[in-house]
Amino acid sequence: MYPINLIVVGKTKQKSIITLENHYKQLVKAYIRLEIFEIQEGRGQTERRLLDEAAYIRAALSGHKRQVILDRGGTQRGSEEFATWLGKIMDSGESLAFAIGSSHGFHPSLKAEIKESVSLSQMTFPHDLCRAMLLEQLFRACCILRGKPYHK
Amino acid sequence: MYPINLIVVGKTKQKSIITLENHYKQLVKAYIRLEIFEIQEGRGQTERRLLDEAAYIRAALSGHKRQVILDRGGTQRGSEEFATWLGKIMDSGESLAFAIGSSHGFHPSLKAEIKESVSLSQMTFPHDLCRAMLLEQLFRACCILRGKPYHK
Repeated sequence: MYPINLIVVGKTKQKSIITLENHYKQLVKAYIRLEIFEIQEGRGQTERRLLDEAAYIRAALSGHKRQVILDRGGTQRGSEEFATWLGKIMDSGESLAFAIGSSHGFHPSLKAEIKESVSLSQMTFPHDLCRAMLLEQLFRACCILRGKPYHK
Repeated sequence: MYPINLIVVGKTKQKSIITLENHYKQLVKAYIRLEIFEIQEGRGQTERRLLDEAAYIRAALSGHKRQVILDRGGTQRGSEEFATWLGKIMDSGESLAFAIGSSHGFHPSLKAEIKESVSLSQMTFPHDLCRAMLLEQLFRACCILRGKPYHK
């Protein structure tokens, strides 16, 4: 089984979010191998930044059979449905990588390229909070798949 | 202008979520008066618990012109749309209260009574994390309404 890769842009600045991220990371790691790749934020104007970040993200996603971006406008699933989707990928043995953009999101060209997306919410949340939210959903999904009582 | 009331059930246990909640609470308070009412968790079997909690929540919501529950299956809005909705209520001078259920959610009878709902996500998140998420959206909404640069 491949580890699940999580590609994130930039460092989490808010201390409480770092602690929260670590909390869920530990919980997830009891169930799945997880590797987090923190890539550098681009510099300069937004278009330039996003283009640079897209290049890094593309490289980090490449080689993975299932390449998924977190996108507000992406595919919405309830937690059970997300667990089913994740379980199928894990059963298939396909390698999976999620990318979470910077606070400016993704360059449109990257969005157009990557066909699979997951939406945590129609609302916009801080990108670092989204990391913690995704980790929580991964943990919840594991509990759902294993019939653990965490999810009600 | 009435304060916005936030009715929550039980204490937040996760320390990092408390810190995160406080962080957004401070940010929100620069824009709106906010009062948080923490009501006791019900005891015993789920049905009993939820019935007791519903009685407390009902009492805490009563008297407010706009009574809103946070519900996964409720009305979804993007952050801009949520800001517009909130701005209209604040402009109208109507009193507003949000209720966030316990980890078991709300009793169905309460859900049937309260007509207005807000969904932060189709996914299930821990109820204490939802508090922080709602506070973040309230802050974001204030920034959107005042044209502040927080929201991109």
